[in-house]
Amino acid sequence: MAPPGADRPRAVVLVSGGMDSATTLARAVEAGFEAHALTVRYGQRHAVEVERARELATGLGAISHKIVDIDLRTFGGSALTDDRVPVPGAREPRARSSAPSTYVPARNTLFLTLALAWAETLGARDLFVGANAVDYSGYPDCRPEFLEAFERLANLGTRAGVEGRSFRVQAPLMRWTKGEIVREASRLGVDLARTVSCYAPSDAGSPCRACEACALRATGFREAGLPDPALD
Amino acid sequence: MAPPGADRPRAVVLVSGGMDSATTLARAVEAGFEAHALTVRYGQRHAVEVERARELATGLGAISHKIVDIDLRTFGGSALTDDRVPVPGAREPRARSSAPSTYVPARNTLFLTLALAWAETLGARDLFVGANAVDYSGYPDCRPEFLEAFERLANLGTRAGVEGRSFRVQAPLMRWTKGEIVREASRLGVDLARTVSCYAPSDAGSPCRACEACALRATGFREAGLPDPALD
Repeated sequence: MAPPGADRPRAVVLVSGGMDSATTLARAVEAGFEAHALTVRYGQRHAVEVERARELATGLGAISHKIVDIDLRTFGGSALTDDRVPVPGAREPRARSSAPSTYVPARNTLFLTLALAWAETLGARDLFVGANAVDYSGYPDCRPEFLEAFERLANLGTRAGVEGRSFRVQAPLMRWTKGEIVREASRLGVDLARTVSCYAPSDAGSPCRACEACALRATGFREAGLPDPALD
Repeated sequence: MAPPGADRPRAVVLVSGGMDSATTLARAVEAGFEAHALTVRYGQRHAVEVERARELATGLGAISHKIVDIDLRTFGGSALTDDRVPVPGAREPRARSSAPSTYVPARNTLFLTLALAWAETLGARDLFVGANAVDYSGYPDCRPEFLEAFERLANLGTRAGVEGRSFRVQAPLMRWTKGEIVREASRLGVDLARTVSCYAPSDAGSPCRACEACALRATGFREAGLPDPALD
């Protein structure tokens, strides 16, 4: 980590309360960025995420943390924002070509757009996001070509971009397995006991152990050969 | 307008309460779309816009109207969302290369993203926006290349896009002068007395007659050879 007071470049880091974004934040700080964490409260049923995001951001050395509210339930279309759509279990079949029902329409476009708006006023050029390759098999807005298209848009659609500050979208975990993420999180001192991966946790944040996100997380800890401290 | 009950394609139309977006909505309805109007209350100081948007959407035949709240004041950086930054007068000089202080960071990216999220759940493929060439001399996010980049992003970053429904961003007024817009609005029966263009109107919606937006509007009516009914 850069020494306090050093003139570090600023970055906006999207922090959800999950393991991937916490690890991304820890890497941004380690790489020497003055990290400004951004969390979006979008009406997700797993709202405990937001409190955990705040805790993680502070613990990992973000210089500021902002929570933005926008209620995506108004549009519906996702198991994560509509109580009438059940969160699927990890073993339920779905069409291989299709994103899962936990896909939220245009969510990552929205998150990155808010990060961009803040970055522009902060004078930051780097936007960090925890998108990764394991998720992207299902979510179209976690793929590298999506992030490249967003970068292009950011540079065309902002005053800063047009004036020559080119924005960069950094997704350092993009091609990592969940096991690699767990190991890296562990190396960086991320408090994994406080990260929430589950799509349908209890109000206190305990995982359901049945949804796809819980299954993916369990795979990660198994691959890394580590116990999951959130299950204690 | 298509007859009621006909099987019309759906479209999401961004409606701000201004003349350009109202005219865009009227054109979308005339072209046979089932128009769903979307207005964003983002903390703009000219909040009377939002009520006018509702009125115009209903009057122009939108089948539904949704208002989404997101407070962009949290990021600052614009005269439109920060009471401490004055709205500039029309005659104040500014750097020619630069967007005016009324530029709101990433605003149109955000508006289009919300339109996209709704379009995806509605099963619409067309997003209408009132961007036009007179504004785009100053605002980077009103240029054709920005809208093309957004279209590309929309098709990469959504389930619908990946599955082959390609989204289209339609900006029918893009290359029109303000005079042409006034004439078209008049032909389409837009209630111009109820449109708000001013950046700093009174609470009741009366224009300041001094800001850039008022000046641009006045030019439009002069070019069209029509009186501005909002000035009565």
